[in-house]
Amino acid sequence: MSATLKVDLGARSYPIHIGAGLLDDAALLPGLVKSGQVVIITNTIVGPLYLERVTRHFADRQCHVFELPDGEGAKSFANFERALGFMLERRIERGATIVALGGGVVGDLAGFVAACYQRGIGFVQVPTTLLAQVDSSVGGKTAINHALGKNMVGAFHQPTAVVADITTLDTLPPREFSAGLAEVVKYGLIRDYAFLEWLEAHLDALVAREPAALTEAILRSCENKAEVVAGDEFETGARATLNLGHTFGHAIETALGYGAWLHGEAVAAGTCMAAAMSARLGWLDADAVARIERLLGRAGLPLRPPAGLGPAQFMDVMARDKKNVGGHIRLVLLRALGEAVVTRDYPPEALAATLAAATTAA
Amino acid sequence: MSATLKVDLGARSYPIHIGAGLLDDAALLPGLVKSGQVVIITNTIVGPLYLERVTRHFADRQCHVFELPDGEGAKSFANFERALGFMLERRIERGATIVALGGGVVGDLAGFVAACYQRGIGFVQVPTTLLAQVDSSVGGKTAINHALGKNMVGAFHQPTAVVADITTLDTLPPREFSAGLAEVVKYGLIRDYAFLEWLEAHLDALVAREPAALTEAILRSCENKAEVVAGDEFETGARATLNLGHTFGHAIETALGYGAWLHGEAVAAGTCMAAAMSARLGWLDADAVARIERLLGRAGLPLRPPAGLGPAQFMDVMARDKKNVGGHIRLVLLRALGEAVVTRDYPPEALAATLAAATTAA
Repeated sequence: MSATLKVDLGARSYPIHIGAGLLDDAALLPGLVKSGQVVIITNTIVGPLYLERVTRHFADRQCHVFELPDGEGAKSFANFERALGFMLERRIERGATIVALGGGVVGDLAGFVAACYQRGIGFVQVPTTLLAQVDSSVGGKTAINHALGKNMVGAFHQPTAVVADITTLDTLPPREFSAGLAEVVKYGLIRDYAFLEWLEAHLDALVAREPAALTEAILRSCENKAEVVAGDEFETGARATLNLGHTFGHAIETALGYGAWLHGEAVAAGTCMAAAMSARLGWLDADAVARIERLLGRAGLPLRPPAGLGPAQFMDVMARDKKNVGGHIRLVLLRALGEAVVTRDYPPEALAATLAAATTAA
Repeated sequence: MSATLKVDLGARSYPIHIGAGLLDDAALLPGLVKSGQVVIITNTIVGPLYLERVTRHFADRQCHVFELPDGEGAKSFANFERALGFMLERRIERGATIVALGGGVVGDLAGFVAACYQRGIGFVQVPTTLLAQVDSSVGGKTAINHALGKNMVGAFHQPTAVVADITTLDTLPPREFSAGLAEVVKYGLIRDYAFLEWLEAHLDALVAREPAALTEAILRSCENKAEVVAGDEFETGARATLNLGHTFGHAIETALGYGAWLHGEAVAAGTCMAAAMSARLGWLDADAVARIERLLGRAGLPLRPPAGLGPAQFMDVMARDKKNVGGHIRLVLLRALGEAVVTRDYPPEALAATLAAATTAA
């Protein structure tokens, strides 16, 4: 089973190919990468596993490999500058293509390098984690981190194609796989109730990494994200709903230091906090909150922030979040299961109470 | 006399205001900057001269000033990172506006910071050099330099407005003023023969910095550039004609090290080389070449590359130029006065002979 989805962005439209064994397709990658110069950006974990399966398609091209260290820390200014210098030293031209082979960290940094190298060159995403396949390879967001905040420096730069080979998920550690499921569940929660029900029925198959279930879940996640992004490429409106759980989640990641919790783990706990706050505002009932927690729990995800994190730390980091406008903390909440709202219009006490409850429960 | 020009780029359209005393207009800058947070990026030369005239308009806003060192060296990775850190420390939000107060270096760096800060925020250009007023504030190109090449890292990011107050040119050193004229002459050469004739008639008034002549020259330069850019925002075609003299010029700047020659000086010598090569191909006659050299000479500009630079150095740097596609060196040449062509289709001997003649003449 394999599927192709077209992300419709006018002149910047591109295809997402999803399926088992796509890296071994003798026509796919060579056809998507049209340039004579290819720069593969990967990392020290993914490179040894999949690099050879990618480079053999470019034996007749000028192909260079730039390897990043593993982990969120790789999304640094230093590596950004290093990658650009690597390309300049090799006289990579404007018509060249970057291939991002790895998870979200590799994709975010490689995409930002592609966005800035000579003011923008093409890049193809080859995401090798569930999180990257369902989320960071769709939407054109690229970024690096700063000590004062995650993804604070970046660009909107669409890939020319995405190749999501689900066989690369076979080597994914269980924690990382679960973290990806947090974003899958998100699409059901924010805009696709039918998909939420499908997930409740198929979560065990997903956790067992059954190919048909995986392909379906990735396809439906990408479809949902693509529809949102197509309607709001530069994140001025509806796209913000994709940040369900992310404002709370970023606070967890920032307060703990990047890498202590995986992004998806922080999003899962943040999603539970958003659900709790939605219930506090009368939008979700206790049963709906329980369904969310049950699904995330079955996916092996944390439902509460880590112990030791207090409301003040949340407020401090959230006030710095780039989604804020005019000093108010913008939140993505659930009006119902399958319907998200973006709002700054809530009683401050509701947020305070939500933070207090979540952090004492931990 | 003042003028306003609209650069037509659909959703990214913006106005260019040109005239004497615009910095003192109590309504203009405050109206163009709509945000509560303002970050003025300037440098140690321009700041002391004009900062107060800008900041007083934002007395009721949260206004921060980030000062760069003077010179092309300021367009560095280090300053890029430092400016972003400065803004993050002050919790500058996504709705904020950057005001770039200075010449092309300040505008290029400030624009790239605006392009990347939280994936893009608004910025207003307040160019204070002739070069920046006619050239770098129109077109959306932003960039920083790398040891291996100028403007090698950057983004296309349009300003929300440009305010060109010609009284700021009063403090401009003669060499810098002349350098700006090189780009003014360029517009006549590449696409506006009537403007070329106007320049031949009014160059003395321009050199004397007469306000009416300045406003007219800047307006017509911006109109020409805006028309080219509107038709080719991302530099895939006609926009390349704006690089007349730049391929040779960049080679001069890179070989000498940034700052030894001003950009406009290198462009002037490069334009003479492009003219000589055009003559060699039979497109310009000796009289046309002489008119170009006479005009640039009256503007106080160099007509030859610096002594000591040989053909091999030119070839080495030009082969690295980011405008190359497929290994051939792309050149902007003149089919006639007022008509530029972009071509890779020329006898390599013609380029070799042009380089040899220009470098032995020096």
